[in-house]
Amino acid sequence: MDSTVRTHIDPLGTLAERHRRLEALRTAFSGLNTTYPLADGSTSKRTYLDSAASNLRLSVAEDIVQQAMAHYANTHSQLHFGARIMTEVYHRSHDIVADFVGADDDDTVIFCGNGVTGGLNRMARVLTEQRPDRDVVITTMMEHHANDLPHRKHAGEVVHVPLEHDTNGEAGRVDMDALQEAIDAHADRLNYVAVTAASNVTGIVNPIHNIARMAHAVGALCVVDAAQSAAHVPLSMQGNDPEERIDVLCMSGHKIYAPGSPGVIVARKDLFAGLEPQEVGGGIVEFVDTERYVVTDDLPEREETGTPNLPGAFLLAATLYLLGRIGMDLVAEDERELTQYALTKFEAIEGLHIYGSHRLEVAERIGVVTFNLEGLPHGLVTAILNDYYGIAVRNECFCAQPFVRQLLGISDERGVAPADCTDTCGPEDAAAGDGAPPREQPGMVRISFGLYNTKEDVDRAADALRSIIDRADEFRNMYEPVGDGSGDWVHREFSFDPDDTFSIEGAVDRWLESA
Amino acid sequence: MDSTVRTHIDPLGTLAERHRRLEALRTAFSGLNTTYPLADGSTSKRTYLDSAASNLRLSVAEDIVQQAMAHYANTHSQLHFGARIMTEVYHRSHDIVADFVGADDDDTVIFCGNGVTGGLNRMARVLTEQRPDRDVVITTMMEHHANDLPHRKHAGEVVHVPLEHDTNGEAGRVDMDALQEAIDAHADRLNYVAVTAASNVTGIVNPIHNIARMAHAVGALCVVDAAQSAAHVPLSMQGNDPEERIDVLCMSGHKIYAPGSPGVIVARKDLFAGLEPQEVGGGIVEFVDTERYVVTDDLPEREETGTPNLPGAFLLAATLYLLGRIGMDLVAEDERELTQYALTKFEAIEGLHIYGSHRLEVAERIGVVTFNLEGLPHGLVTAILNDYYGIAVRNECFCAQPFVRQLLGISDERGVAPADCTDTCGPEDAAAGDGAPPREQPGMVRISFGLYNTKEDVDRAADALRSIIDRADEFRNMYEPVGDGSGDWVHREFSFDPDDTFSIEGAVDRWLESA
Repeated sequence: MDSTVRTHIDPLGTLAERHRRLEALRTAFSGLNTTYPLADGSTSKRTYLDSAASNLRLSVAEDIVQQAMAHYANTHSQLHFGARIMTEVYHRSHDIVADFVGADDDDTVIFCGNGVTGGLNRMARVLTEQRPDRDVVITTMMEHHANDLPHRKHAGEVVHVPLEHDTNGEAGRVDMDALQEAIDAHADRLNYVAVTAASNVTGIVNPIHNIARMAHAVGALCVVDAAQSAAHVPLSMQGNDPEERIDVLCMSGHKIYAPGSPGVIVARKDLFAGLEPQEVGGGIVEFVDTERYVVTDDLPEREETGTPNLPGAFLLAATLYLLGRIGMDLVAEDERELTQYALTKFEAIEGLHIYGSHRLEVAERIGVVTFNLEGLPHGLVTAILNDYYGIAVRNECFCAQPFVRQLLGISDERGVAPADCTDTCGPEDAAAGDGAPPREQPGMVRISFGLYNTKEDVDRAADALRSIIDRADEFRNMYEPVGDGSGDWVHREFSFDPDDTFSIEGAVDRWLESA
Repeated sequence: MDSTVRTHIDPLGTLAERHRRLEALRTAFSGLNTTYPLADGSTSKRTYLDSAASNLRLSVAEDIVQQAMAHYANTHSQLHFGARIMTEVYHRSHDIVADFVGADDDDTVIFCGNGVTGGLNRMARVLTEQRPDRDVVITTMMEHHANDLPHRKHAGEVVHVPLEHDTNGEAGRVDMDALQEAIDAHADRLNYVAVTAASNVTGIVNPIHNIARMAHAVGALCVVDAAQSAAHVPLSMQGNDPEERIDVLCMSGHKIYAPGSPGVIVARKDLFAGLEPQEVGGGIVEFVDTERYVVTDDLPEREETGTPNLPGAFLLAATLYLLGRIGMDLVAEDERELTQYALTKFEAIEGLHIYGSHRLEVAERIGVVTFNLEGLPHGLVTAILNDYYGIAVRNECFCAQPFVRQLLGISDERGVAPADCTDTCGPEDAAAGDGAPPREQPGMVRISFGLYNTKEDVDRAADALRSIIDRADEFRNMYEPVGDGSGDWVHREFSFDPDDTFSIEGAVDRWLESA
């Protein structure tokens, strides 16, 4: 390939300046100073430990978007200054994303959907149409549904490669021997290997460039889901040599401090060659009459019909450029220290079981720690953490049901699809007999970090969990299961009405009445 | 159908208060006070007359989104307060959109893509899959590509109904007799009639409820593209009786003062029945193991897989609720007066030809006026308006090539697809001989209004156009065609570099250096 390898974004300033700026950045997010009432009658600033679901928004980047909005106009014109500025900045937004992931001139950056879901659905369609003779996709047991179901919808067969286990039996990275076997078994029919760069359940990082090499050896492609890793570790399309190059990488703006931004596909341009775009409309056609239409060959235009989400693209670009100028190496280094701190703290809590191999030197992980407390349902622990400690965490299956069920040791046979459950891992058989807890959904509790999280947040969570274990019976009596199949628990007395805190209608009417 | 008809959003306060608030709203947009250098050496506040391409963003609504971002989290959990607030506000955002267009409980509101393009592509796929025996779609000659090409991609045959003409031969609304003939000719095979509520080229409004009635009479559906009308006139899914009900309506947030918001599909729920969603992933599944996945029947969840664009949805909801509380009747009334004012002013300019029937009592139109100046290329006029008068307008074909070509009297045979042109209406044959202008793209100049536009803006545009006509030779010598097939003209001396005004990289580095 005749390609020019891009570099990552160059960090700005000395190492000391970069560290200082990273510290300044940690407080520049919307939603860090929000207070909520607690069940004990006090009020507390929330501790946001739910970044693996979605990150808080970088307010510096919002301010930069606001500067851009002074010039707002649609793109696709060079004749008025607003349109020219928007067209240029939108174009540069693609370049910044390309630089952030070390893409080269053989790649295109396409904004698509809101997260990786839109991009992975798009690419599953494209790669299926492009390589119809190769009807097998290999993915892994640690994928969230977004990097699994789109392949099942379009491919003839999807193979789930198991994970290796550490000496404690905890699941770690993808089992590379099993992957090699699966690749060999399907070599001629294998279209691509779709793998996450990091699990959203355990945080464990996969060797994506090795996997690319293995896929390429049989003429298959490597599709990387970088939703969970992009905000946490340096990423590159390039490996040590061309065989290790990633073919398709999808990212999610809302998981990299830019909620409201579009999802991203970074992909080799030649993968789109000769295919009619999946979506058609304005902005991509060279000629249209009532009989014919001719679509441009230019990428990304060809795959970005219609008016783009300009403010969202700018928000993402500003965020990525900011992170790149500070340096993802520093971001990763600090997060690793925080993750190690959290693992050590949590390992010391008796009755707390962490899922996934948790020695970083064995299985590298980003800032995600998922666990259960012995004898306490995940939904109850999550509710207590919120109601009594102002700590926001996520529970249940994290849109990765097969993996969570495996980590919990629940066989597929036991997890039969219920008629009435929603977004769950399948029902756990309820213990029979009087006083037994009602039927509930299996799941886990997950804490996850963003740039704004500190060791104090970890201490707060660890102290809260210890206290929950100590006061388990007391708390259990204060709550009851919602009983709607969700696995949620609700306080018997304390209640919270979202409308009292914020509603669009209330905010609009207040403005109108003051206008 | 067992449905509860929703009402539109109730206006707040007395008529006088509503008028006063509408006036207050007119100045609450980002990008109204932007100044640019002009070619004569002066600096001018820009006059934004390009709202049909995209509207400026309502800063009140941005502020409300910012209030919401204090609570930001992902949805799909009820156990921490941020997630509960986001889930509730996101749910209410759908309801506000439903109320804005008078949807009822038989309808669902789906956020999809950025404008109508995503929604119309989605619905073309859905309706084709749902009704495979009906392989004909009828649309009209006045559609932009977004409401034409998706149907062509999926339907077996697309019929373009011509427009009626007024006594001056100017194209007006859809020719209802021709539409009836087309419906009769394809009755058994007709899947749906797809029609715009208002043209983005002429602004002329179509009788969508009559069209719905005609479609329903043969068992066909009515799909309405409300991209151009939603910000300008009251809209309703409901007509005078059930036969006039709209089945599918698509809207574009960026054309209703909410750039950065998702596109919208409002559609009858039963149209999705039994179909696998076009996109699959997290948030829509009841159960997943490695063999099977069971998708929820709930709408809109089923059609909204993945993490939603929450800030964008809130921006749209805040904007629509604000407009609804003031009342779209007032918005429409004022815009009609401004449009009439503009038409009268422009009709009086000798050498200016307005396209489309321009008596409002014959063919109602929203605030769009498209024209050419005799003997002056549209690209040159647009460049001069920007460079010498600070007036931002759009030119060329407005992503509606067949319609623009028809209005210009260019036959399809002459508009042969060129090898190297982009987003144009096809090349016009160049006049032969010395001194003849170079080959250029046919097109028009369009001014279009938003809430922030005033009669002074119209005066400024009319004065500028008169001055351009008077100084035509002088201006022509100052410019040269870009010659890239775009139809653009560029000043020989005056230049403008977007980067000098705004760049993401510059804004980020300034923040870092001050941090």
